[in-house]
Amino acid sequence: MTDWARMLARFRAQSEAALDARLPAADSVPTRLHAAIRYATLGGGKRIRPALVYATGELLGVATEPLDAAAAAVEMIHAYSLIHDDLPAMDDDDWRRGRATCHRAFDEATAILAGDALQVLAFESLAAAPVDAQARIAMVHVLARASGTQGMAGGQALDLGYIGQILSAAQVEQMHRYKTGALLEGSVMLAVVLAGLQGTDQAAALTRYARAMGFAFQIVDDLLDIEGDPTLLGKTIGADSARSKPTYPAAVGLDNARQKALALMIEADAALEAFGEAGQPLCWLGHYIVHRQS
Amino acid sequence: MTDWARMLARFRAQSEAALDARLPAADSVPTRLHAAIRYATLGGGKRIRPALVYATGELLGVATEPLDAAAAAVEMIHAYSLIHDDLPAMDDDDWRRGRATCHRAFDEATAILAGDALQVLAFESLAAAPVDAQARIAMVHVLARASGTQGMAGGQALDLGYIGQILSAAQVEQMHRYKTGALLEGSVMLAVVLAGLQGTDQAAALTRYARAMGFAFQIVDDLLDIEGDPTLLGKTIGADSARSKPTYPAAVGLDNARQKALALMIEADAALEAFGEAGQPLCWLGHYIVHRQS
Repeated sequence: MTDWARMLARFRAQSEAALDARLPAADSVPTRLHAAIRYATLGGGKRIRPALVYATGELLGVATEPLDAAAAAVEMIHAYSLIHDDLPAMDDDDWRRGRATCHRAFDEATAILAGDALQVLAFESLAAAPVDAQARIAMVHVLARASGTQGMAGGQALDLGYIGQILSAAQVEQMHRYKTGALLEGSVMLAVVLAGLQGTDQAAALTRYARAMGFAFQIVDDLLDIEGDPTLLGKTIGADSARSKPTYPAAVGLDNARQKALALMIEADAALEAFGEAGQPLCWLGHYIVHRQS
Repeated sequence: MTDWARMLARFRAQSEAALDARLPAADSVPTRLHAAIRYATLGGGKRIRPALVYATGELLGVATEPLDAAAAAVEMIHAYSLIHDDLPAMDDDDWRRGRATCHRAFDEATAILAGDALQVLAFESLAAAPVDAQARIAMVHVLARASGTQGMAGGQALDLGYIGQILSAAQVEQMHRYKTGALLEGSVMLAVVLAGLQGTDQAAALTRYARAMGFAFQIVDDLLDIEGDPTLLGKTIGADSARSKPTYPAAVGLDNARQKALALMIEADAALEAFGEAGQPLCWLGHYIVHRQS
């Protein structure tokens, strides 16, 4: 295992423990809801958002405990969005992270409520972080912006509204910035808040990194849905095209999309230059995001 | 108009303005999502939760602006819960507050996202309240507890899980305390937090008031679903029984349920005694909740 793979495995184990500690016990009432929440959140996923929290936080010298609170929060938001996006009224997916989606394993009503409750748990995790109240409130603002109508939820609404349309590259980019980019950027920003560095040059550089990396992430997601390996991905491929969903490759072509992802990776690298060697983990995460097979 | 009706009308107007100021503009992107959020939140509803915030806050001498933030937050949570509860996978209602439910007026996916986004807006409203960070964080905790798996979302899960079962009065009481009581109690507690009175005798008295009143509220809701006037209610009646939903009247009989609601009203009154004349608005709200026709 390379150093980088070891680092990612460490972040994964840490975010799993941080989530486990903050999710309600499966044997407490209401048990079925709690079981659904744990099923949809634990035991799978790349944990890229927590990895961004931890890697940024370690770069900026933040202690582990507050990073755990932030990492758990962003992954809870991500998990809730997957549960809701997979519902029949949305993307209607049966398969996620190599297992039945939450509404298939449980039922639709339970899946809706599990998503709703995970969103509460995410804000609660930030509100309980072991840092001063000012920093906790600043984190609540960052997470709200990342997940609301100008962020993740808004992006999903745009995505659904665009079905069947031919979009320009700029329109796809805006949709992706809302739908995926906002929460990836938010993950980096939570660590910046915990470091007390909002508004500094370092924060600006990390924002540039996060934006480039976030857009690259979604382009690669679109590409994997066309040419990825369903066994590695743990979900069906071809789903976007089957649903006439607008994607970046559909807007600019496969080759241009691949080129754009690589250009964004270079842009992300450049944004990290000011951090020197210390920026390597984030740099590596960017490369992982572009070159991943799942 | 009586003084009390005037007070309720004032709280309604104030919460409408507080919501309007905090909801995204309908002409900003994503427009359809924003339109759905405004449709489901503005222009209807009894605004009982905001009224509890304002009445408690005025009793305790809290300024109007922070109360607006708290009132908007509880009503956003309530509005999101109605949107999600009305979905086909949950209660499958077509009619709410005298109009088509959100998923009927828009579509299911938009309704799911509108609910999700309203939850974000609620936490954002608290995080932006014009009070110190400590009080804002305390409010986030109160709202999280009221709306999570040991509160509103958990209560809805219990409710769905109990369909078709014959419950004891104690089981119905627990379900109602989660499903409705928690957010009504939370509304009172947000004002207590803003007054800086957590942990005091006054807070304990207001908690007793809120619990009695919250349970009475749900018993009356159950009764109205059996013997209410659908024109006044703005929704179909008989829905609970048609779906074999467990209700308090089903557990103890109609007469006993009516008696219990009155007994709880007296309990709520007694809890307010320590406040003397100043407790009258909350006292009146309790009576309104028990005697309402809609």
